Amino acid sequence: MWQMKKNELDLSKVLVEESLFTLGNGYLGIRGSFEEGYGSDEICSNNASYINGLYDRVPISYGEYAYGFPLVQDKQPRIVDTQNCQIYLDGERVNLSNGQHSNYERILDFKAGVSTRKYHYETTIGKSAKISFIRLASLWVKNIFIYKIDVEYDGDIELRCSVCTDIKNSGYISDPRVHAQDVKLLNNIFLKSKANKIHCLMQTLKTKIHQATVIDHRVVSNTPYEINHEIDGQTAITSIKSTQSMSLEKHCYFTDGIRFIDPYDEAVSLSQKYADTPFKEFLSAQADFLAEFWSHSDVKIDSNDDIQTSIRFNIYQLLQSVGPDKYSNISAKGLSGEGYNGHYFWDTEIYVLPFLQMTQPHMARSLLEYRYNTLPFAKNRAMELGHNKGAAYPWRTISGEECSAYFPAGTAQYHINADIAFAFIQYHQFNADYDFLAKMGAEAIIETARIWLEIGNFSNDQFMINSVTGPDEYTAIVNNNYYTNLLAKYHLKFASKLFDEFKTVKTESLKTAFEKLCMRISFTKKEALHMKEASDAMCLPYDKELGIFEQDDSFLKKAMWPFSETDKSHYPLLLHYHPLTIYRHQVIKQADTVLAHFLLEDGIDETSIKASFDYYEKITTHDSSLSACIYGIMASRCGYLEKAYDYFKESINLDIKNTHSNTKDGLHMANCAGAVLSIINGFSGFRISQRGISFRPYLPKNWKSYSFKIKYLNREIEVSVSDNIKFTLLSGEPIPITVWGKSIKLKDQLIFDKKKDIS
Amino acid sequence: MWQMKKNELDLSKVLVEESLFTLGNGYLGIRGSFEEGYGSDEICSNNASYINGLYDRVPISYGEYAYGFPLVQDKQPRIVDTQNCQIYLDGERVNLSNGQHSNYERILDFKAGVSTRKYHYETTIGKSAKISFIRLASLWVKNIFIYKIDVEYDGDIELRCSVCTDIKNSGYISDPRVHAQDVKLLNNIFLKSKANKIHCLMQTLKTKIHQATVIDHRVVSNTPYEINHEIDGQTAITSIKSTQSMSLEKHCYFTDGIRFIDPYDEAVSLSQKYADTPFKEFLSAQADFLAEFWSHSDVKIDSNDDIQTSIRFNIYQLLQSVGPDKYSNISAKGLSGEGYNGHYFWDTEIYVLPFLQMTQPHMARSLLEYRYNTLPFAKNRAMELGHNKGAAYPWRTISGEECSAYFPAGTAQYHINADIAFAFIQYHQFNADYDFLAKMGAEAIIETARIWLEIGNFSNDQFMINSVTGPDEYTAIVNNNYYTNLLAKYHLKFASKLFDEFKTVKTESLKTAFEKLCMRISFTKKEALHMKEASDAMCLPYDKELGIFEQDDSFLKKAMWPFSETDKSHYPLLLHYHPLTIYRHQVIKQADTVLAHFLLEDGIDETSIKASFDYYEKITTHDSSLSACIYGIMASRCGYLEKAYDYFKESINLDIKNTHSNTKDGLHMANCAGAVLSIINGFSGFRISQRGISFRPYLPKNWKSYSFKIKYLNREIEVSVSDNIKFTLLSGEPIPITVWGKSIKLKDQLIFDKKKDIS
Repeated sequence: MWQMKKNELDLSKVLVEESLFTLGNGYLGIRGSFEEGYGSDEICSNNASYINGLYDRVPISYGEYAYGFPLVQDKQPRIVDTQNCQIYLDGERVNLSNGQHSNYERILDFKAGVSTRKYHYETTIGKSAKISFIRLASLWVKNIFIYKIDVEYDGDIELRCSVCTDIKNSGYISDPRVHAQDVKLLNNIFLKSKANKIHCLMQTLKTKIHQATVIDHRVVSNTPYEINHEIDGQTAITSIKSTQSMSLEKHCYFTDGIRFIDPYDEAVSLSQKYADTPFKEFLSAQADFLAEFWSHSDVKIDSNDDIQTSIRFNIYQLLQSVGPDKYSNISAKGLSGEGYNGHYFWDTEIYVLPFLQMTQPHMARSLLEYRYNTLPFAKNRAMELGHNKGAAYPWRTISGEECSAYFPAGTAQYHINADIAFAFIQYHQFNADYDFLAKMGAEAIIETARIWLEIGNFSNDQFMINSVTGPDEYTAIVNNNYYTNLLAKYHLKFASKLFDEFKTVKTESLKTAFEKLCMRISFTKKEALHMKEASDAMCLPYDKELGIFEQDDSFLKKAMWPFSETDKSHYPLLLHYHPLTIYRHQVIKQADTVLAHFLLEDGIDETSIKASFDYYEKITTHDSSLSACIYGIMASRCGYLEKAYDYFKESINLDIKNTHSNTKDGLHMANCAGAVLSIINGFSGFRISQRGISFRPYLPKNWKSYSFKIKYLNREIEVSVSDNIKFTLLSGEPIPITVWGKSIKLKDQLIFDKKKDIS
Repeated sequence: MWQMKKNELDLSKVLVEESLFTLGNGYLGIRGSFEEGYGSDEICSNNASYINGLYDRVPISYGEYAYGFPLVQDKQPRIVDTQNCQIYLDGERVNLSNGQHSNYERILDFKAGVSTRKYHYETTIGKSAKISFIRLASLWVKNIFIYKIDVEYDGDIELRCSVCTDIKNSGYISDPRVHAQDVKLLNNIFLKSKANKIHCLMQTLKTKIHQATVIDHRVVSNTPYEINHEIDGQTAITSIKSTQSMSLEKHCYFTDGIRFIDPYDEAVSLSQKYADTPFKEFLSAQADFLAEFWSHSDVKIDSNDDIQTSIRFNIYQLLQSVGPDKYSNISAKGLSGEGYNGHYFWDTEIYVLPFLQMTQPHMARSLLEYRYNTLPFAKNRAMELGHNKGAAYPWRTISGEECSAYFPAGTAQYHINADIAFAFIQYHQFNADYDFLAKMGAEAIIETARIWLEIGNFSNDQFMINSVTGPDEYTAIVNNNYYTNLLAKYHLKFASKLFDEFKTVKTESLKTAFEKLCMRISFTKKEALHMKEASDAMCLPYDKELGIFEQDDSFLKKAMWPFSETDKSHYPLLLHYHPLTIYRHQVIKQADTVLAHFLLEDGIDETSIKASFDYYEKITTHDSSLSACIYGIMASRCGYLEKAYDYFKESINLDIKNTHSNTKDGLHMANCAGAVLSIINGFSGFRISQRGISFRPYLPKNWKSYSFKIKYLNREIEVSVSDNIKFTLLSGEPIPITVWGKSIKLKDQLIFDKKKDIS
């Protein structure tokens, strides 16, 4: 239940397993490659390591360039990979492709925070060895990654660890026409050996950011051993020879020039500071950290299948990927691969943050701080786009600069501004943290809200937002995308009410802080009034005949996609049809209107929500990994319980079963979170709004129970659903909650036999 | 009146003058560079030669690639340039930057079909020389280009002619961020000298098309002379030495592997065939050709300014650029520069062809044959775009393959299909050539019409065409672009009536040919009926309140561009604003709805035409060179006579005065034609439709008279407007014409004192 386990070696799935077994701590991420290699050149492997927030830049080429197109793009570079360690037994290299092995076991342990791997190996002359590996990305000291390799063998043992500084990011194998070539992003400044350590300093090619690595080799052997370091050009090889048994620990220290003035000095200091800290201390610190984490973030499920393990896998991968400071965020693929170049998208705010907001507010806050930290770039970008004021957040980025090379499904997705504001507002709803609001939240919310006044206009008393793209990338550059407009309406309303909001604050210093902010960014009551007017008059396209909200002004007038004539092999459509062919039809890549109704349902009648779901579901291909989870949540909302469970299964298995065939390029972080939301927001129907928190819990068929916790306004509440529905106030003062539409005060515990008890 | 003349050397305008003094014959084009050079490295020159229809291919890069984006792009290569001939006087090189010159004169002669240049030059020791040049792109034998250089000097004369095969197309100087680097498109296969000839065979890099050049040096000198050929790597140098006076003729023969199986063999044959043909014979053939040309295509103007010369300049440049066979068309910049990579656009059908249809039907037909010849590519492209049948012509191309790298203002301009069909239909209206219709026209018209059924759909009983871009590139990917829909309506109607059309044909073989065509391409009466239904139900957005046709479904709901806040330096907008900022506003780059009303006015009420003109004119920036002429024509139509004349002046001077600052990259062919149309369709109000031809003639203020001829259904009619309006039937049977709305039979001559005489 706390482990993902593989009992068989399958060398045909190396790339996918490397992603699944990635170990990270939000700062560092190292894919699960085999230390000893795979024994064959025919096996494609991406043994890669990453640091969150580190970036180089590569030029973007355009057949036809237009004003405001980004000319360069951030790219998360592979840093020096420390995984490599060949094993020789009596001079014969352990080879998993051709050699004999048995008792294979590989585990990713969510409670211990390590991955392990072990097997018995038989040499060609029939002698047997026991080989085992354990690795850990320290959640205690995030710059540290440790490998431990144990070999027992009645003969000569040699380990040859190598580090190569000639590193390239790999081209996209999936589409040979684009970025087909590997790209070098880092230069070797130096590589040297010192005592049992390898020291290495690298620098990104264009952005000139340093990155340092120190690898400390600690050997435990009952018999005498010999250790040798050798630098050969850009490769350092450390070879350790012994007999009978050997235990090697590689303690690796990683630093970078974004966070440290002298990263090399810092890496050396760290290696000295922790030189005598035994591995077991790291193990126990790891376990402590995770005990605390799971005590708030676990989702317990009692069912007859392996769902419990799967849901923990998804939560664990989120934990491993969330950037720990204002210099980093959570990239679409976490720290597990090079898909999307390591860029951060709206996935953070609309998929990942909701879960963190509920259970790990400090992690949520850290992700928001990154956005605040990059606000100056967003303000510059707004100017570049021709706006007079405001901030336009980039569709995809690492550094904060816009990196989207295809604006119809990039820069045109102005909704990113509302998505980010939505997350700041939600953070405020969960925490009522006026200090954060005054220091960061309000400024980000106001500056992003200004863009709606810049791009929108009044026409026939309605406020229209033209020429944008909504979440659905199968429809581009449209007028009045419902999702965008609904979120903008909410966003503008919140921004316009900030003056009132701060009136209620009692701490004088916070009032002053907000006043100073308004002075500094020239935010006036007049501007707030404009925002209110735009919000009140926001155009929300609605089709009376169908009784549904229209995805945009013209969506329902388009021809239906010829689904019945489309061969299965032609999905995802984007790989088989020209964008114009797709844009011209009623066909949806991912939840759009349906997503809007998940995020904001207040004031929208249930019938329209349900009719919209029914209509759009039929024409959604779910070609994006951001879709299934949202449809699952909304299926729950509409009472389609079987459907909800199907979507949930799709979501929870997306990476584990590689259903989108691209897990090799990295895990799908938004979906990992979406799988969890499918339970919390789906099965339990949790929502938060200005009016408080509410639930509509039910138990999926064949489940015995599920439970989770939510932190809300300094309280922690446990929600537990089995034959009955139980709310327990674990800490904090009594508070009203809404269950199936009825507001009830939660003091210690509330128990309902079933839905009927409540209504 | 028949010459463009420059009496002063201005070395600051070298690039522009090279474009203006381009000499061509539709097959060959050679920019007007100075044989002797400009004497300074600081003077930027593009001494380049081109062959119409020749192309290499270069890859197109995309930051984000999507299905159906072209991966390569045709590019018109510079071929070996034969212009270079340094002049030495007593060993001192003639240098126009530093040396003394006088009596400078440069002429482009529209009647003689040559360009000449001459001056007196003084060497540093004060000795004087007379130097003169004449060049000719033969209109008789289109593979031949001749230079004649005469030098009189009391001393040693040396001419050093060089040909270099290391050729590169130049990068776009105007936008250093795109295609900044020069591109090599041709390889040297061989370069050799033979008697007084240089032989050279080149091959395009990717498309492997051969191109051969033979240069024959003919020397006339009263004193003995010495001639030497030298090949140094990729450069051939022919040096001729003499004293007192020298006359060198370089007869250059160009061929290519598209038109000839063995182009080298062909070039050699041509050089043998014309070896003894004296230059004067070429001169007289040239004059004969032009006499015939001008006898049909001249537009005579009697006014107090230099308009007569300017209009002839524009007509002459058209003649020089129109491809003479099915392998070539007329590129946006003719054969005078590398702007737009030498691509062919809709400029051909909507701007250039109307003039040729009226006066040079065989040239019009040749351009249409090119389209027919590339129909297979258009059919392939339709499949690639996901259509089940039909042909989708490329937005820009040389070979026939789509070369547009930015689909919102490229492939999305589906109206190219209607534009091409429009030209085929117009050809039919002018010539009633059922043979051509049966052989080529009908097939092209039907295949292109099919696309409307593919991309359009019925919604609320209207036929809608969604997700396309109209002519105005400041608005992209819209629904029901009025221009597109109006032309598609017309196009579908004509296609649907083809069965009826051929019923009236008396020649049995033509009827059979059409039936066979229908069999071959499976065109049935049922499909024709579908076309009729779509045509009848075509959505033509109209705004009742404003009484104007709406550019597209949502255009009038968008915010007005802030014209008053836009600095002059920020035009053209496309170089200063992101496409999304432009798309979001009511702002137009070029005639769109207004152009539709020029092409098709039948059935549209005058009030709406005028109101539409008034509305759209205010928000049009004319950032495209395709705009002023159309607004001028429609200003005439609406009775805004002063405005019409202003636009006409803008159009006629666009290249001559370099008003768009990019004439250096080549002349603007569509505008050259547009300037002429401003008179014929503008001042004389000429229109052609199924119902016949009509006029609304008036005389611009301060003009004494103008006249021109029109070929129509085997007649030639002269239209002459002065104090009176005179129609003369020069040849053919009597025919009714419509003048100011009234149908009158034209027998020999019709004279009206003024407008009132008619109505």
